Amino acid sequence: MKKYTNMNDISNISEMVKEAILLKMNPYGYSEIGKNKTLVMLFFNSSLRTRLSTEKAAKNLGMDVMVLNVSDAWSLEFEDGTVMNMNTSEHIKEAAQVISQYADVIAVRAFPTLKDKAKDESEYILKSFVKYATVPVVNMESATAHPMQALADAITITELTDKPKPKVVLSWAPHPRALPQAVANSFVQMMQNLDVDFTITHPEGYELNKGIVKDTPINYNQEEALKDADFVYVKNWSSYNDYGKILSQDENWMMTKSKLGNAKFMHCLPVRRNVVVEDAVLDSESSVVIPQANNRTYAAQIVLKKILENL
Amino acid sequence: MKKYTNMNDISNISEMVKEAILLKMNPYGYSEIGKNKTLVMLFFNSSLRTRLSTEKAAKNLGMDVMVLNVSDAWSLEFEDGTVMNMNTSEHIKEAAQVISQYADVIAVRAFPTLKDKAKDESEYILKSFVKYATVPVVNMESATAHPMQALADAITITELTDKPKPKVVLSWAPHPRALPQAVANSFVQMMQNLDVDFTITHPEGYELNKGIVKDTPINYNQEEALKDADFVYVKNWSSYNDYGKILSQDENWMMTKSKLGNAKFMHCLPVRRNVVVEDAVLDSESSVVIPQANNRTYAAQIVLKKILENL
Amino acid sequence: MKKYTNMNDISNISEMVKEAILLKMNPYGYSEIGKNKTLVMLFFNSSLRTRLSTEKAAKNLGMDVMVLNVSDAWSLEFEDGTVMNMNTSEHIKEAAQVISQYADVIAVRAFPTLKDKAKDESEYILKSFVKYATVPVVNMESATAHPMQALADAITITELTDKPKPKVVLSWAPHPRALPQAVANSFVQMMQNLDVDFTITHPEGYELNKGIVKDTPINYNQEEALKDADFVYVKNWSSYNDYGKILSQDENWMMTKSKLGNAKFMHCLPVRRNVVVEDAVLDSESSVVIPQANNRTYAAQIVLKKILENL
Repeated sequence: MKKYTNMNDISNISEMVKEAILLKMNPYGYSEIGKNKTLVMLFFNSSLRTRLSTEKAAKNLGMDVMVLNVSDAWSLEFEDGTVMNMNTSEHIKEAAQVISQYADVIAVRAFPTLKDKAKDESEYILKSFVKYATVPVVNMESATAHPMQALADAITITELTDKPKPKVVLSWAPHPRALPQAVANSFVQMMQNLDVDFTITHPEGYELNKGIVKDTPINYNQEEALKDADFVYVKNWSSYNDYGKILSQDENWMMTKSKLGNAKFMHCLPVRRNVVVEDAVLDSESSVVIPQANNRTYAAQIVLKKILENL
Repeated sequence: MKKYTNMNDISNISEMVKEAILLKMNPYGYSEIGKNKTLVMLFFNSSLRTRLSTEKAAKNLGMDVMVLNVSDAWSLEFEDGTVMNMNTSEHIKEAAQVISQYADVIAVRAFPTLKDKAKDESEYILKSFVKYATVPVVNMESATAHPMQALADAITITELTDKPKPKVVLSWAPHPRALPQAVANSFVQMMQNLDVDFTITHPEGYELNKGIVKDTPINYNQEEALKDADFVYVKNWSSYNDYGKILSQDENWMMTKSKLGNAKFMHCLPVRRNVVVEDAVLDSESSVVIPQANNRTYAAQIVLKKILENL
Repeated sequence: MKKYTNMNDISNISEMVKEAILLKMNPYGYSEIGKNKTLVMLFFNSSLRTRLSTEKAAKNLGMDVMVLNVSDAWSLEFEDGTVMNMNTSEHIKEAAQVISQYADVIAVRAFPTLKDKAKDESEYILKSFVKYATVPVVNMESATAHPMQALADAITITELTDKPKPKVVLSWAPHPRALPQAVANSFVQMMQNLDVDFTITHPEGYELNKGIVKDTPINYNQEEALKDADFVYVKNWSSYNDYGKILSQDENWMMTKSKLGNAKFMHCLPVRRNVVVEDAVLDSESSVVIPQANNRTYAAQIVLKKILENL
C-alpha cells in the first residue's frame, strides 16, 4: 500500500478487513515493523478519536509519533505562482517535502469549508500533500472522505454478523450544525464494496454526490428503508446539492428504538443524544458505537502496517 | 489500586510513601510493567508540573503517553437525558467509554468554576469519568482535591524529617486571584493520615470544608500557630463559605523568614514571590519547594505502578 | 558540551560538522545513549521544522521527549525582587529548577519582541534558563541567535562543495513582515568560523550588529556581491539600527535565477515565494533548501549527542 487517501487505495477490501480482525487479536505482534519509523500527524482541524486511535495504532506497531496542530501561525499557500506577500508564509511544496524528511508516513486531517463546493471537492490540501510529500500520506478525514472510519465500519459489520449478505441502511439524521458529507461518502463507497444489501434513506434534497452513490438505492421513506435491517448507520450531513446548507431539522428523522427494530445501531461519533438518536438506542444492547470506535485503532493499524511493509 | 481520585483510594498511606521513596532510588527498575500500556492524559485546564511529572512517571514505567488538551472544540455533555441541540457535541458516556478503549489508564485535570459550589462539589467531571470509563481513572487535580500533590507532599515530609511526630502547619497566604481549595483540602486529609502534629492557620472567614477539616485544630493567630513548626505549608485559597470570594489580601499573612523560624517551607507551586512568600524564604535553605516538585514524579509513578499491578 | 545557546558553545566547528555528517549516515547507531533521558522542549513561539527535527533527533538517540507550548496560561516572571501581584504567576527561578528535575536537557524557543532592543539583546529568557536550570539548555532560536540552524547550514555547505574555500554570500531579501536578525546573526558567525570566502549584501540601513559582523565584508551592491558565488543564503531581517523597522521592500532584492548564476540557493524556510525568491529558483536544481532542512535533524542530533555524552 502506497497511501490511504480514499477507498480506491485498497485493492482488496474484504482481505484487508480480515487482516485487521487478525491484527486486533494480536495488536503487539508487529511491534518491530515500525522501529525507527515516524508518523507525523498533521491536524488542520481538531480531533479526539482519530488522534488517539491513530497514535495508538502507530505505537502498537513500534512507530514514533509526532503530532502537530496546524494553527494560524502556519498559513500554507496552495496556489502555484502566487506572490506570497499576504497572509500565507509557506508553500505546500516546501512544507510537504520538508516534513517528508522527518516522517516515514504523514497523516493529514483537513475538513471542508462547506462554502466553496469546487474547492472542497478539489481536495486541494490532501492532494497537495500527496503530490509534494515524498512519503506515503494517510487521510484522517478530508473534505469529502473519511476512509479510515469506513474501514473501521467494515470491520465492525464483519465482526458482528454471520449472515452472508446482511442488510445495511445509511439513514440521515437531523443536526443543529452543518456537517460534511465525508463520513457518509466513504461509508457508501465501503458498502458498495462489501457483500451487503445496502440502502440509503434521507429526506429529499439531501442526495449525496451522484458520482459516489451511483446505483445504490435511495429511499425517501425512512420506515420502509429500515425494514428488516441488520445494521443501521445513522449520520447527519448537510446538503450536497444546495451545498453546505441545512435544509431540514425534522425530528422525525431521529433514530428511535422502535424504528431500529432488531438492527444494530452504528454511528461514527461524536453523536448528539436525543437529536440524532434517542438515549434508549445508545443505552441499549443494539448500539455498537463503542466497539465501532475501538475498531478505529485496528483500521489505522492495518493501514499503517500495509504502508510500512511497502516502504 | 483501582483508581486514585482522592485520598480514600489509598489503603495504607505510610506504606505507599515508603514505596514511593524506594521507587525514587530506582525509577527505571519497573520499566517492563508499563509495556504496551497507554496513559491518556486529559487536560480541561492547563498544566506544567502535573503534565510533565505525570508523563515522566508513566514513561519511567515504560508506558506510552497520549496528551489531549480538551478545548472548546470538544464540548462534553454531562447531564442525563439532554436533547443535545445546543453547544455540547458529545456525551461523557460515549467519550469515557471510547477513550477507555485507547487507554489503560485515564488521567483527568478539571478545575472548579468557583462560582457554583454545589456543582463544583459534585465533582461531576471527574466522577463521570470514573462512572463511565472502563479503565482506572487518576485525578490530576479536580474541583475539590489534588491527591497526587498531597502524596508528593507526604513523601517530602517523610524524607526530610527524623522526628517521630513533626509539627506541620498549613498557613493561608494572600493572592490576587481567587484560587481553588483543592490543594489545601488534599493536604489536610493527607496530614490527618500521617503521624504528624497538624494545625491550620488562616484569617477568620477562610475556613475550609468542615467535612474535610473535622477536628484538625484551627488557629486564627498565625504567629501562635507557627510556633516550633517543623514544616510550614503555605497556600492561598478563596473562601469556602463565601464561595470563591477573596475576603482578604492582608499582606501580614505573607510568609517571611522571621515567621518561618527553623521550619521547612513548602508550597505546591507556582508561587507568587513577595505576595505569598518573600524572596528571602524561597532563596534560602529552608525552602524545599524544588525537591517537593520533584516528588510529583514519584507520587505519580507509585500510583501508576499500583494501578498497573492491579490491571 | 554543556549547553548550546550560541556558536561559542562549540569548541571545534569543523569537527562538529564532520561528526554530524557521519551521524547522518547512521542515525540510529546511538539509540542507547538517550535511554532513560528526557528532552523537554519549551516553545514560547510556534515552530514547525525546529519542533519536528529536534524531536526526531532526540528520538533517534533513544530519548523521551516532552513538548510544552508555553501560553498565556503560564506567565513567567524574569525580574528579581518583583512583588508578583500582577500578571506573572511563576518566577523563572522556580520554573527552570522544577523543569530541570523532569528533564535531562531543556530546549527553549523564545523570539524577540523587535520593540525593545536592549531587552531582546539581553536574551533574558534564554539566559535565565541557563542561569537557573540545573541541566543543559539548548537554543531552538532565541531573540538574537539560531545556532541550530547555523549548524545545519554548515553541514549543508560542507556536504555540497569540494572546493577548499567556496564563496558564500548572505543576501538580504524583502519581506512584508518585520523579522528577527537571529538567523542572519548565527549564519554570519558560523561562516566566520568555516573556511569560506564570505560576503554580506543588503541595502544601506540593514547593517547587522557590528559586534557580530566584525570585519566581514559588506557590499551594498547585490550584483557585485553575488559574482562567482558558490552558495547564496537569502534571508530577510528587519533593521537592527532602526530597530525592528521595515526600511525597504524593494523587489529588486528578490533572488532570481539570473542573479543566482551557478550558485546553490539556501534559505532556512519558511520562505515566501516570489517575494524573497522567485519560483524559478526554488523549483530548480540550484535550490538546496530541502536537504538543508533535513540537516536540521542531524544538527540537533549531534548537539544532543555531545550533551548526553557529557552528562
